[in-house]
Amino acid sequence: MELADFIRAARGDVPADTLLKNARVVNVFTGEIQATDVAIVESRIAGLGDYDGRHVIDLQGRYVCPGFIDAHVHIESALVPPNEYARLVVPRGTTTVVADPHEIANVLGLEGIRYMLDMAKYNPLSAYFMAPSCVPSSDKETTGAALYWYDLQTLLHEEYVLGLGEMMNYHGVVNGQPDVLDRLRAFQGRVKDGHAPGLSGKGLMAYAAANIGSDHECITPDEALQKLELGMFIFLREATTARNLRDLLPVVNAHTNRRLCFCTDDRVPSDLMDEGHIDYMVRVAIEQGIDPVTAIRMATLNPSEYFQLHDRGAVAPARRADLVVFSDLRAPRAEMVFRGGQLVAQDGQAIPWVRPKPRPVLRSSVNVNWATTHLRIPADGQRVRVIEVIPEQLVTQARIEALPNHDHTLLTDPARDILKLAVIERHMATGRVGLGFVRGLGLRHGAIASSVAHDHHNIVVAGADDLSMLTAVQAVVATQGGMTVASGETVVAHLPLPIAGLMSDQPFETVRQQMDAVRAAARQLGSPLHDPFMTLSFLALPVIPELKLTDHGLIDVSRNEIVSLFAP
Amino acid sequence: MELADFIRAARGDVPADTLLKNARVVNVFTGEIQATDVAIVESRIAGLGDYDGRHVIDLQGRYVCPGFIDAHVHIESALVPPNEYARLVVPRGTTTVVADPHEIANVLGLEGIRYMLDMAKYNPLSAYFMAPSCVPSSDKETTGAALYWYDLQTLLHEEYVLGLGEMMNYHGVVNGQPDVLDRLRAFQGRVKDGHAPGLSGKGLMAYAAANIGSDHECITPDEALQKLELGMFIFLREATTARNLRDLLPVVNAHTNRRLCFCTDDRVPSDLMDEGHIDYMVRVAIEQGIDPVTAIRMATLNPSEYFQLHDRGAVAPARRADLVVFSDLRAPRAEMVFRGGQLVAQDGQAIPWVRPKPRPVLRSSVNVNWATTHLRIPADGQRVRVIEVIPEQLVTQARIEALPNHDHTLLTDPARDILKLAVIERHMATGRVGLGFVRGLGLRHGAIASSVAHDHHNIVVAGADDLSMLTAVQAVVATQGGMTVASGETVVAHLPLPIAGLMSDQPFETVRQQMDAVRAAARQLGSPLHDPFMTLSFLALPVIPELKLTDHGLIDVSRNEIVSLFAP
Repeated sequence: MELADFIRAARGDVPADTLLKNARVVNVFTGEIQATDVAIVESRIAGLGDYDGRHVIDLQGRYVCPGFIDAHVHIESALVPPNEYARLVVPRGTTTVVADPHEIANVLGLEGIRYMLDMAKYNPLSAYFMAPSCVPSSDKETTGAALYWYDLQTLLHEEYVLGLGEMMNYHGVVNGQPDVLDRLRAFQGRVKDGHAPGLSGKGLMAYAAANIGSDHECITPDEALQKLELGMFIFLREATTARNLRDLLPVVNAHTNRRLCFCTDDRVPSDLMDEGHIDYMVRVAIEQGIDPVTAIRMATLNPSEYFQLHDRGAVAPARRADLVVFSDLRAPRAEMVFRGGQLVAQDGQAIPWVRPKPRPVLRSSVNVNWATTHLRIPADGQRVRVIEVIPEQLVTQARIEALPNHDHTLLTDPARDILKLAVIERHMATGRVGLGFVRGLGLRHGAIASSVAHDHHNIVVAGADDLSMLTAVQAVVATQGGMTVASGETVVAHLPLPIAGLMSDQPFETVRQQMDAVRAAARQLGSPLHDPFMTLSFLALPVIPELKLTDHGLIDVSRNEIVSLFAP
Repeated sequence: MELADFIRAARGDVPADTLLKNARVVNVFTGEIQATDVAIVESRIAGLGDYDGRHVIDLQGRYVCPGFIDAHVHIESALVPPNEYARLVVPRGTTTVVADPHEIANVLGLEGIRYMLDMAKYNPLSAYFMAPSCVPSSDKETTGAALYWYDLQTLLHEEYVLGLGEMMNYHGVVNGQPDVLDRLRAFQGRVKDGHAPGLSGKGLMAYAAANIGSDHECITPDEALQKLELGMFIFLREATTARNLRDLLPVVNAHTNRRLCFCTDDRVPSDLMDEGHIDYMVRVAIEQGIDPVTAIRMATLNPSEYFQLHDRGAVAPARRADLVVFSDLRAPRAEMVFRGGQLVAQDGQAIPWVRPKPRPVLRSSVNVNWATTHLRIPADGQRVRVIEVIPEQLVTQARIEALPNHDHTLLTDPARDILKLAVIERHMATGRVGLGFVRGLGLRHGAIASSVAHDHHNIVVAGADDLSMLTAVQAVVATQGGMTVASGETVVAHLPLPIAGLMSDQPFETVRQQMDAVRAAARQLGSPLHDPFMTLSFLALPVIPELKLTDHGLIDVSRNEIVSLFAP
């Protein structure tokens, strides 16, 4: 729209396109609640006050706040692509997300990132992206792609790419590893997200000195305060697994609140549907005693400033009309959501929209070399290293167990909760298989398999017997990715994830049902865990201690070394 | 410096260049005072904590805060060029200024701006510039240059040009005047400063809708709050004339303080020397009850965020080591000033530095066509319009007086405090002279003249008789600009301003003495005003009501019309 026309509308000389009458506007600049009307012209707010509108909506005193912003999310963790993710989170009041597509990047590299960029357009959600900084996350795993600084810099000119995604390789930064610094240099002058769990002292100082601007891995207020002191923004996280919000709220005060944001990192559809998204975090913060306007500001203005998205984050002239309408200031729940001036959700449901065709097509990403995929473990020793699950945590313990054997073959011992664990390379069909044992999944028989395995996303499978394991893996491969529960030759439950082996092509409601079904089936087989698939997917992540398994083999994470299955 | 080397220093593996030991750091992120050491490597802070340094300075518990930032200043008003201005303000703790060079732009256009850019380099002060948006400020005056959008956009790529300077033509914005909108469009995506005294309601809404991001003309907390609500940053101003700071402090609270900054706009050397610069504003704010860290944050982090100068504004790793050392948290007075890691001032004195030669040379800008410069006013009527000065204000009143005449020539009437006023065009030697009368300057005899006359900076002269007036003007022209007091054929006092007729080429101490001398001389001639030259310079500004004089003649400002000297 011509600036002159927009100014004319702000002046009140021509009617607004949409007028929200009798609103109570949450002013994130002043902390006030303003009783006023909101005039919207095309995608933006023209003014607050007494205006005429062609289309008038009487809010009858309901509140209006800016659309919520998720400061850091891996959309893939919701198991649906960006368009479906929009349908899921927009009704919860989210109008902008900053996504790090590092899951799909580990599978499909730049092709995967471009798929996400493409699928993120034309939806009622502004999805911005950070270029994944750590693909692969480790040199002890096989991924579908590796992204070096010269790959990442091809994203610099993308309109929806804001900066460099979470720099998980904090050791690399602190130790001045050249390829890591190359990535930082490529994004000089752009926002760079951090990821430095527990880093403190000189290491943290070095990390901050590299101009990394945020962290979302804090678990205590003290840790958050230390990082705030150094100028980092802190994203308070409430993921499906890592739930840090309540613990961190004591860090919010009059001085610090401007540099605090909310993020979800990884949230599965059931949590997004049952609890909510950023709106849930706002409600929890308020319930825990944070002033409502401060909580809303942390969800809106603060991330808009951190990411320099100055066209949003407030209900003010010239800003985008990304708005949430709700009734209870102490527990905001979106009743209407406007995005760019359009009503995009009402009463918890997205208003259907039409996406232009054709959709981008992705190549097959589940490529297993069956010829070399054997699960048998020769009994070359008696005592083996076993990965021990710690419930609800990503860290594991290493223990040593003696296992039964038969015919020079090591056996599982479900009675002692010791299952076989395998990671089957699925990108390049190299035929690499990592084999080991795990304790704590609780399956008494059968097997569970998944093509979601952080961050390399090879196929990870655990089971009481090889046949069940192979059945599960075959089901995963058959749908080009998925999560499967099998018993013997029977597939008991299956969630297909044909998009990069990470995401479904079905509506999120279906995904949720399928996910409930695979979880329930795993529990049926004996697992006491709330979500054994989540646990399974992190057993293959070789950057979180203590003992993990990749297609390269068993990894002693602290020493960053491959170790033998057999204990000395 | 290589990033790897900087990280190594932050890690503490190599000694810092300079170590400030036993500091109490004002942390603008958390509001804390941290007892720690500050490690500086080259121009930046490497870390806070326990470090070694090649050069160690023991601060013995003194405070360290970020260098102060002036969010809006016309350096020309200090009557010295940027290098000398640096010597004046850096010892007061200022390490960054954002200057609008619109005074020199009215005289010399882009050449003048480039002179300022050039003279602002190599000094111990970071001087950033905003492209002057309103040159000339009116169509009822002759200036040395006019800057259209296509002129201004030549500045867009300049490293030290941040955005568009104060958009004083708010009528033009609100009314969608095409050449004004062209200027805004040219600076799309860049920061755009405002100037909208008293603007409210729909007009203010339209101004904010044009994405103008700040205002420094508020005079009441209510006005400031209205503008804050719309997302504008408010710069609290304490100029030499316009002193709004104390009045505005009630707007500072926990919600608003992040969007408030300090600015000086126009300050003469004596005020900068006697009161101070931004440090003075910080002291006044604290004295008036603002929390010291909040006051310091308004002088540091806030303007750094508004102007997106993210490399400064805090004492934190990777930020510039622009630092102020002081002893009293309740009245910060710079004892040491570091800029880019170098000690640049100590105990109120700048440490001498060497500027590379040659300095830029400016063309002559005082070009008067003497052939047509006559001060005689024919007695074509009895009753004339007289400009009435209101002490300490920029607005004037219009009154009508009958004046004596002799030989068909109107005479002044010093006994009734009615002097002749003339504005002599000095840029293009057009020979244009505006003539009128003024009441309230108080000279009983003699004349005062100045080449500083906002914003066109023609020569403005007021006097009891034509001979004194001509003597004064000739003295101004003789030094290519200046401020002069004359009586008959005698120059009583003179401050030469040879740089664009606006600035001295002498040390600020000399300028201050010369300015004191011309002020005293004017008072000697009878003027009761504190600074009759300041008053004189605004009598020629045709954008502030009610009656003003330019080289085009008498201007009825409210009607924006030239009116006859003779009343009907």
